[in-house]
Amino acid sequence: MTEQEQKEQKNSEHELKQESKKFKEDTNIIYIGEKPFMNYVTGVVTQFKTKAQREVIIKARGKFISRAVDVAEVSAKKFLKEEKIKVKNISINSEEFENKEGKKVNVSAIDIVLEKA
Amino acid sequence: MTEQEQKEQKNSEHELKQESKKFKEDTNIIYIGEKPFMNYVTGVVTQFKTKAQREVIIKARGKFISRAVDVAEVSAKKFLKEEKIKVKNISINSEEFENKEGKKVNVSAIDIVLEKA
Repeated sequence: MTEQEQKEQKNSEHELKQESKKFKEDTNIIYIGEKPFMNYVTGVVTQFKTKAQREVIIKARGKFISRAVDVAEVSAKKFLKEEKIKVKNISINSEEFENKEGKKVNVSAIDIVLEKA
Repeated sequence: MTEQEQKEQKNSEHELKQESKKFKEDTNIIYIGEKPFMNYVTGVVTQFKTKAQREVIIKARGKFISRAVDVAEVSAKKFLKEEKIKVKNISINSEEFENKEGKKVNVSAIDIVLEKA
């Protein structure tokens, strides 16, 4: 690979990263993980308030499901009182996958859809 | 209180206990806690299979919410395949209460209603 080609590849990788970052900021889907609790609440509130979304989807798997419910409740009832946010729909499902030891395990998942009334 | 009165009180307490036990066995509400996971799955399966319930409600609070989703998924998809159990409704809510230190805390809760199709 010539130096020019390497440079071009690096550029396109950078663009891809930027795009994915932009996508992450613009999307109305909030994935719940182990970051500080308020990060997720702020994420939900920002989508409704700053980004003017009519709908936000909170997604979680496994042990983070309890947290997703907390995020939905705290966002809607504490921080978005005036916006009159309602739970539009909640769905659960589960996926089977192989863990590191090659054992089949099931993991449950939840989608909580909040909407502006 | 005379001996007779004491005896009567004891009897009525005993009856109350029996009734509450009976109620617990007959009810189609399963509360998720820290007992072994399969206890709850068996509880759900028994309600549909042995007690012929058309509907079972799985309830949980706080950290047990993730578990409630697991119980619902495993019961319906692994143990009640033939019964064609579907999620009828899922609702979330939260309650504020005072903890031991007198601090106000919020706890989220979930109700998962399963029904025989």
